[in-house]
Amino acid sequence: MGRWEPNTRERLAKAALDLYGERGFEQTTVAEIAKSAGLTERTFFRHYADKREVLFSGAIELEQLFTRAVAGAPPSAAPIDAMAAGLDAICAVFEERRDFARKRQAVISATAELRERELIKLASLAAALTDTLRGRGVPPSVASLTAETGVAVFKVAFERWIVADETRPLDRLARESLDELRAVALGGNAPMSEV
Amino acid sequence: MGRWEPNTRERLAKAALDLYGERGFEQTTVAEIAKSAGLTERTFFRHYADKREVLFSGAIELEQLFTRAVAGAPPSAAPIDAMAAGLDAICAVFEERRDFARKRQAVISATAELRERELIKLASLAAALTDTLRGRGVPPSVASLTAETGVAVFKVAFERWIVADETRPLDRLARESLDELRAVALGGNAPMSEV
Repeated sequence: MGRWEPNTRERLAKAALDLYGERGFEQTTVAEIAKSAGLTERTFFRHYADKREVLFSGAIELEQLFTRAVAGAPPSAAPIDAMAAGLDAICAVFEERRDFARKRQAVISATAELRERELIKLASLAAALTDTLRGRGVPPSVASLTAETGVAVFKVAFERWIVADETRPLDRLARESLDELRAVALGGNAPMSEV
Repeated sequence: MGRWEPNTRERLAKAALDLYGERGFEQTTVAEIAKSAGLTERTFFRHYADKREVLFSGAIELEQLFTRAVAGAPPSAAPIDAMAAGLDAICAVFEERRDFARKRQAVISATAELRERELIKLASLAAALTDTLRGRGVPPSVASLTAETGVAVFKVAFERWIVADETRPLDRLARESLDELRAVALGGNAPMSEV
């Protein structure tokens, strides 16, 4: 551990998730989270602005990883292919945290305040991806559409990934969603064409 | 007017927007909005749950119009074409309210609480569109992707439409955004292909 307590953020996040899952978000106080993690309330607030934020401890790292991978795609890559590179990069990180992700999403789904915070994080991610794509020379409206599309693909893949009996890895589900998006944009999935 | 005051909601929304624009959202009270509209605070709360909700007075009608148009597209229409029919339907309604939309968006952009509420309304719209597409027999993940995509196309078109010197109608900008989305999904807009 050492005096810097390098995993303080993670300990607080884990303690918060356990308590929210057991007692509910509303019924849990910051003091209880800190105590359960063996830390003080003051330490909690050095790391998180509020009770909601503690469930989004990885949001900044996720955004950095995603945008760096998009920025680092070959200069000749089309916007959607740069986005696919970003999706691959973040899916790998989630893979080993499936149980945590399932518990976390169950808590978020049950609490309006947490769903709000999640929407804000996703909007912030889309804005960061838009900036990154613009930095690659993509025109503004195309950058914005590609970023929103990338976030939508991730959301849909993530929702499938955390279903109880789903065993396929997230990167595979994300690639499937991206293929589905291509089919949708081309006017595929028309009811008549499936007959 | 008559004792039912049929345009109460609109009067409150207009009064609120004017006051938010002049004084700022934080500095305006519900009592002041009601007074400015010639109504009581009690009447305000009969129509809106809070100070934020009054700026989203048309959200339910918008959602109904959008989902009905998607539901009403020919049974053989592909999901993206049903979505395009929905976009056409809502764009027509916005067209005559461009000045109001510009003022409203300026207030929303300046206030974190209002941006949050807007994200919730858009998420609710995407969920309603997903349900509507599933009602057309579209598989769940395709329905979700198409709905998110439709909302993204609308957002991008709307942002362009309210730019100060933009004169093109919203439905045209929405169709352009949809075409851009198709190009993006096909791997278009690669920097090299533009050389």
